[in-house]
Amino acid sequence: MDNFYAPGRNHLFVPGPVNIPEPVIRAMNRNNEDYRSPAVPAMTKTLLEDVKKIFKTTSGTPFLIPTTGTGAWESALTNTLSPGDRIVSFLIGQFSLLWIDQQQRLKFNVDVIESDWGQGANLQILASKLAGDAAHTIKAVCIVHNETATGVTNNLHAVRKILDNYGHPALLLVDGVSSICALDFCMDEWGIDVALTGSQKALSLPTGMGIVCASPKALEASKTAKSVRVFFDWNDYLKFYKLGTFWPYTPSIQLLYGLRAALDLIFEEGLDNVISRHNRLGTATRLAVDAWGLKNCTQKEEWFSDTVTAVVVPPYIDSSEIVRRGWKRYNLSLGLGLNKVAGKVFRIGHLGNVNELQLLGCLAGVEMILKDVGYPVKLGSGVAAACAYLQNNVPMITSRI
Amino acid sequence: MDNFYAPGRNHLFVPGPVNIPEPVIRAMNRNNEDYRSPAVPAMTKTLLEDVKKIFKTTSGTPFLIPTTGTGAWESALTNTLSPGDRIVSFLIGQFSLLWIDQQQRLKFNVDVIESDWGQGANLQILASKLAGDAAHTIKAVCIVHNETATGVTNNLHAVRKILDNYGHPALLLVDGVSSICALDFCMDEWGIDVALTGSQKALSLPTGMGIVCASPKALEASKTAKSVRVFFDWNDYLKFYKLGTFWPYTPSIQLLYGLRAALDLIFEEGLDNVISRHNRLGTATRLAVDAWGLKNCTQKEEWFSDTVTAVVVPPYIDSSEIVRRGWKRYNLSLGLGLNKVAGKVFRIGHLGNVNELQLLGCLAGVEMILKDVGYPVKLGSGVAAACAYLQNNVPMITSRI
Amino acid sequence: MDNFYAPGRNHLFVPGPVNIPEPVIRAMNRNNEDYRSPAVPAMTKTLLEDVKKIFKTTSGTPFLIPTTGTGAWESALTNTLSPGDRIVSFLIGQFSLLWIDQQQRLKFNVDVIESDWGQGANLQILASKLAGDAAHTIKAVCIVHNETATGVTNNLHAVRKILDNYGHPALLLVDGVSSICALDFCMDEWGIDVALTGSQKALSLPTGMGIVCASPKALEASKTAKSVRVFFDWNDYLKFYKLGTFWPYTPSIQLLYGLRAALDLIFEEGLDNVISRHNRLGTATRLAVDAWGLKNCTQKEEWFSDTVTAVVVPPYIDSSEIVRRGWKRYNLSLGLGLNKVAGKVFRIGHLGNVNELQLLGCLAGVEMILKDVGYPVKLGSGVAAACAYLQNNVPMITSRI
Amino acid sequence: MDNFYAPGRNHLFVPGPVNIPEPVIRAMNRNNEDYRSPAVPAMTKTLLEDVKKIFKTTSGTPFLIPTTGTGAWESALTNTLSPGDRIVSFLIGQFSLLWIDQQQRLKFNVDVIESDWGQGANLQILASKLAGDAAHTIKAVCIVHNETATGVTNNLHAVRKILDNYGHPALLLVDGVSSICALDFCMDEWGIDVALTGSQKALSLPTGMGIVCASPKALEASKTAKSVRVFFDWNDYLKFYKLGTFWPYTPSIQLLYGLRAALDLIFEEGLDNVISRHNRLGTATRLAVDAWGLKNCTQKEEWFSDTVTAVVVPPYIDSSEIVRRGWKRYNLSLGLGLNKVAGKVFRIGHLGNVNELQLLGCLAGVEMILKDVGYPVKLGSGVAAACAYLQNNVPMITSRI
Repeated sequence: MDNFYAPGRNHLFVPGPVNIPEPVIRAMNRNNEDYRSPAVPAMTKTLLEDVKKIFKTTSGTPFLIPTTGTGAWESALTNTLSPGDRIVSFLIGQFSLLWIDQQQRLKFNVDVIESDWGQGANLQILASKLAGDAAHTIKAVCIVHNETATGVTNNLHAVRKILDNYGHPALLLVDGVSSICALDFCMDEWGIDVALTGSQKALSLPTGMGIVCASPKALEASKTAKSVRVFFDWNDYLKFYKLGTFWPYTPSIQLLYGLRAALDLIFEEGLDNVISRHNRLGTATRLAVDAWGLKNCTQKEEWFSDTVTAVVVPPYIDSSEIVRRGWKRYNLSLGLGLNKVAGKVFRIGHLGNVNELQLLGCLAGVEMILKDVGYPVKLGSGVAAACAYLQNNVPMITSRI
Repeated sequence: MDNFYAPGRNHLFVPGPVNIPEPVIRAMNRNNEDYRSPAVPAMTKTLLEDVKKIFKTTSGTPFLIPTTGTGAWESALTNTLSPGDRIVSFLIGQFSLLWIDQQQRLKFNVDVIESDWGQGANLQILASKLAGDAAHTIKAVCIVHNETATGVTNNLHAVRKILDNYGHPALLLVDGVSSICALDFCMDEWGIDVALTGSQKALSLPTGMGIVCASPKALEASKTAKSVRVFFDWNDYLKFYKLGTFWPYTPSIQLLYGLRAALDLIFEEGLDNVISRHNRLGTATRLAVDAWGLKNCTQKEEWFSDTVTAVVVPPYIDSSEIVRRGWKRYNLSLGLGLNKVAGKVFRIGHLGNVNELQLLGCLAGVEMILKDVGYPVKLGSGVAAACAYLQNNVPMITSRI
Repeated sequence: MDNFYAPGRNHLFVPGPVNIPEPVIRAMNRNNEDYRSPAVPAMTKTLLEDVKKIFKTTSGTPFLIPTTGTGAWESALTNTLSPGDRIVSFLIGQFSLLWIDQQQRLKFNVDVIESDWGQGANLQILASKLAGDAAHTIKAVCIVHNETATGVTNNLHAVRKILDNYGHPALLLVDGVSSICALDFCMDEWGIDVALTGSQKALSLPTGMGIVCASPKALEASKTAKSVRVFFDWNDYLKFYKLGTFWPYTPSIQLLYGLRAALDLIFEEGLDNVISRHNRLGTATRLAVDAWGLKNCTQKEEWFSDTVTAVVVPPYIDSSEIVRRGWKRYNLSLGLGLNKVAGKVFRIGHLGNVNELQLLGCLAGVEMILKDVGYPVKLGSGVAAACAYLQNNVPMITSRI
Repeated sequence: MDNFYAPGRNHLFVPGPVNIPEPVIRAMNRNNEDYRSPAVPAMTKTLLEDVKKIFKTTSGTPFLIPTTGTGAWESALTNTLSPGDRIVSFLIGQFSLLWIDQQQRLKFNVDVIESDWGQGANLQILASKLAGDAAHTIKAVCIVHNETATGVTNNLHAVRKILDNYGHPALLLVDGVSSICALDFCMDEWGIDVALTGSQKALSLPTGMGIVCASPKALEASKTAKSVRVFFDWNDYLKFYKLGTFWPYTPSIQLLYGLRAALDLIFEEGLDNVISRHNRLGTATRLAVDAWGLKNCTQKEEWFSDTVTAVVVPPYIDSSEIVRRGWKRYNLSLGLGLNKVAGKVFRIGHLGNVNELQLLGCLAGVEMILKDVGYPVKLGSGVAAACAYLQNNVPMITSRI
């Protein structure tokens, strides 16, 4: 039998990988297929068309790369930039930190704008840097839409406006790993040049597909970008797109069918309804945190994340113990605090294929764990606050009689 | 895509069919096999040995019949009794009613002992009937261990003692459909002659296997029982048991592998731990009902069921609307009130492969629904009461580091 | 890991249970659901409509019973007949024998017309019995459409004509277990009163659903039939059909979704194309048997079965050893000879979701086994004969580019 | 329903992706999990130990990278070499060509030793190059063990001996994509420095895991290798190996459980038995090709591949039409001829989880297709030749009674 089995469902509330819907698990439950038969290209063609919808783009070119978010980052950078290029990058938490580390190791000249963990990107500093860059030495602005480590959502539209204010031609590269399919994301409207996500996040698939979407400007940049790349080279994809066979190397048949099913579910629910659901779950979680008397790691409401909430624990509690208790006593998987906030926050991921009662079960679990570890929580208080909001806001399930 | 799809997990809290554990779903995800190969009998042999453990019997003979609980009833009756035989049967709710209906249609002479719905079997009347039956005209006593319609658990041990007090040889036939694998059930110790359950209840499998266990006395009775039977005839099984091929007709390969996995999970958790878990969930549910200011349909604590709780709603509320709301707004499946209690109760099934946070999610959902339909519940109150109890009583998951 | 594992696919060529198509396995890969929610009745309604198509009936009433073929037999008999009723039944092999045994144990007065195993039903004797039955004491004629033990297909249309010739009102009850969905079957046109099959045969599902279809005349008969029945009583189904909830007891959710997928596949291929495919596979198998110099158990071409071929081995070979070798050396599952033909024939089931190359692999395996056991077969001869036919007759797969 | 559905099994005989065993499909049929829980590292630890066995190494360090074979190539090269490094690489077919293309684009100085397609690596030229390289300017020798495009297996042991003869310190980098787990592969004994494969080949998993194994010497080289790399950097893995959390970024939970099951099956059968099975299937295929009067693309017996056979068609036939027919008429997936041999060869992949009767079905299909396209094949001839060999050589399945 499975190692570490415990009765009942595992309550998976890490901010990724997330719960896979049963119809998607079913769609992937299959043997391999010849990816050079007519069937796979036919399916790929419609997938490439449909996946653009989750980026809200019509002009973008998507790539479905057999990799993770880290690989998707590398794809975005190496296809558009050359070693030594100056890029501006925001450091606001562990995942922006890791991306910056990658940017540096890929030999870019990274101009880091750092904020306290719990704050969003400092756009004023961006503005001043752009203001001082009449020579357009800045080739790209890199930003994480939603910092998964702190639960901070940056305002991408504002970034675009600043770039436009200065008429600055820098590319805008966006990590949408924990936002796309969950938060509003308007690639075309916001002038994003490369957007990317991973299959195991709000798309609610297994890990293994990095989804990258390039604007026409980004594609143009790829023609002159000198970064060495082969596996991640968009050109190899574009060559096979033209041939109509689509794949420069073997894709995962199972993930293709899984993506088909995942997109179908999202379109059936309606992408905007999916986004509203995430807002409901995020709001409910924040109300619970307030009711517990705890602080959100995110320092201002404008940065609140609807996909992950990092909860600050009192100094006398080790947040890792909360996560350990969840796993060990309640079959609940919470996110650890990472790096600077290790031991100080635990994270509740509320993204992907999850609904209200699942979240409420999680919140009830968190209350019991808080009590377990000695925090004087009033049991039921967070759930009550969340319920009061949800009971007024959950819509009827329209697909049901 | 699936009809009636809604995001996130369906919260399945009907008292059967219940949630199937993922390892069991996996075990059944397979092609058919030749059931006459050496593999299937080898597996069947160990299944028949192991399934006896869930009845706590060493002397019983189990039958794994491709049927439902209704078919298992028919198997129990027709193999042990002859048309016209007098049997005593307790009517305490919809499922005991349906069994009595079957008994009558199978031409037995049924002596019904009726209780109010919400009460347990009236054992005093049984005692007086036995007292008056020196001639042993009563051939069997039929009792539902746990009446799923009202959430009433009968005391089987007490029934046995009464039979013993009068030295009465009547067979004791027990419907354990919503009890076996969830409530304490001691076939040998309590002198039960036929015990039965269905795969889709606490065993947490799909529907399709009626599991019947016969004591030596019941097997002996089957030699002279004159009820007409073929499909349900134990003799056909016993003939193939002797041959070592085990199956008089084609079994479901998938359910056999599923049963193997289900038993493995139960033994890994420990049957007594499974039973304790059900007691925890039942207790937590009852505490929530109290906190909501609602009544349990079960009239006395001695009959409280740890597998299903029927909650009485105020007269101005239609309980069916509560069930409809659960389905339509919160992806929550609750049990309807049946027959006499239709519209008056809704049922929370807390049996099978379910854990604490799943139940708490359900209870939070019920609170919101109660508010939806106009009952002045204090949101969070039931969850708080349940959490207060659970936080003190949930054990660590011992299989986990 | 799985017991008795061997590398590669198991080559499943028993005449049931048969290979389940991958899309059907996927459809059944799911958790349980509340069968009282609106979703299950809605699906059931369309299933009941669609399942009529595999019987080629518009006037019939289908029942999807959680049972096996043996239970479906019992359902057909007990709902239409009364104990003591005279029925005419054909004994031509093991499965007709078992049905007759059931008929006798259910207390009918069975008038058996026996043929040699390998021959079809003796219709002349039927004619003479009907001729002598001006009083209409014969209440039913029971016939197995395709005797799975010998690979004999009876001519149902001819039976109907004989009944009509004599204007005889006897019900015509047909076991279509190894024929429906594979051989032409025209319930309405041939005036069949009860037709039945099992899910694990040509429908290519797991075992567990007995599918019974009753003509209006059979339904009428059920109103007066006095056979004792509860689990198998059509009336309980009809009552719930009227209510629109459809199920008198819990169905297998997985089999319902599986049936939906199985019917969709059959309709996508086209039922008549499915039947043609079975004819091709049957023909190819018979050509191989000829090429091996072996005899078909079926004595005349008019009775040849397109779903199973029973191959007669020379007296110096034990056919059970052929089956054992298939399993033990080539991961091939063949059917044993049963009862009178035990040791004398082995059976190749070529029904359900199977295609030409699968069959050719099986035939190649049989050739090697024949050589293994000392039969002087020319290796490749059967495959060559089958290929010569198939290469001229396999159509292009129209669903493919 | 599925697009392009056809009845029965798809006969998947491309040289990858290959058939996934049912137990592996089952193992992957699961929800996501938190990869930071204690369960995933515990499983990873045993996977890393066990995966070394398929390389026959005890001193190697394995990496399970979420990528394809192309990514595994890049991982091998960039971790051990610096831009401008001279490497010797053999060009013998499409996959060695693609690897060389990658080597060049990664800015290495590639010294190509070309052979006719259908021949193995020219080791004499290697010897002369090494002889002339007293200065050890050659940093690595790159070789594809089994060229999947032509069905040519190179002699790795001979390569090692030549390197040793000259006492040359060049690293030996080996693409074992279509060999490891199918052909004998002795990483330690043959002094291989980096060996790599992809999950969708002989391991019989879905695509998505590149498995790379580095010798101590390769690890040492990685400390000074200057190729820019982040996603593929071994160092990131090694850092997490030390921490005991193992993953620098999110792995596919499903592939981890799938790998566990795949290794279990291989060890249960016995790796050497797996290799023997591939030899049997390869031999049988070559005998069939001979019997058809066709030529093997592989020009000498010493290079014959036991995992893929490229069959040369007469000039008047387009081999692509053979592949198209297989798909369109017989639900058979064969490999196309690639690049130089496009239209001239078709390929039969006989690797991974496949057995004798599956292959024989494929061979029978190929015979019919050959006839379809006008080649005067004698139907049955190839199958007869293969059967004559197999019937003498297939062992009993020892796991079976």
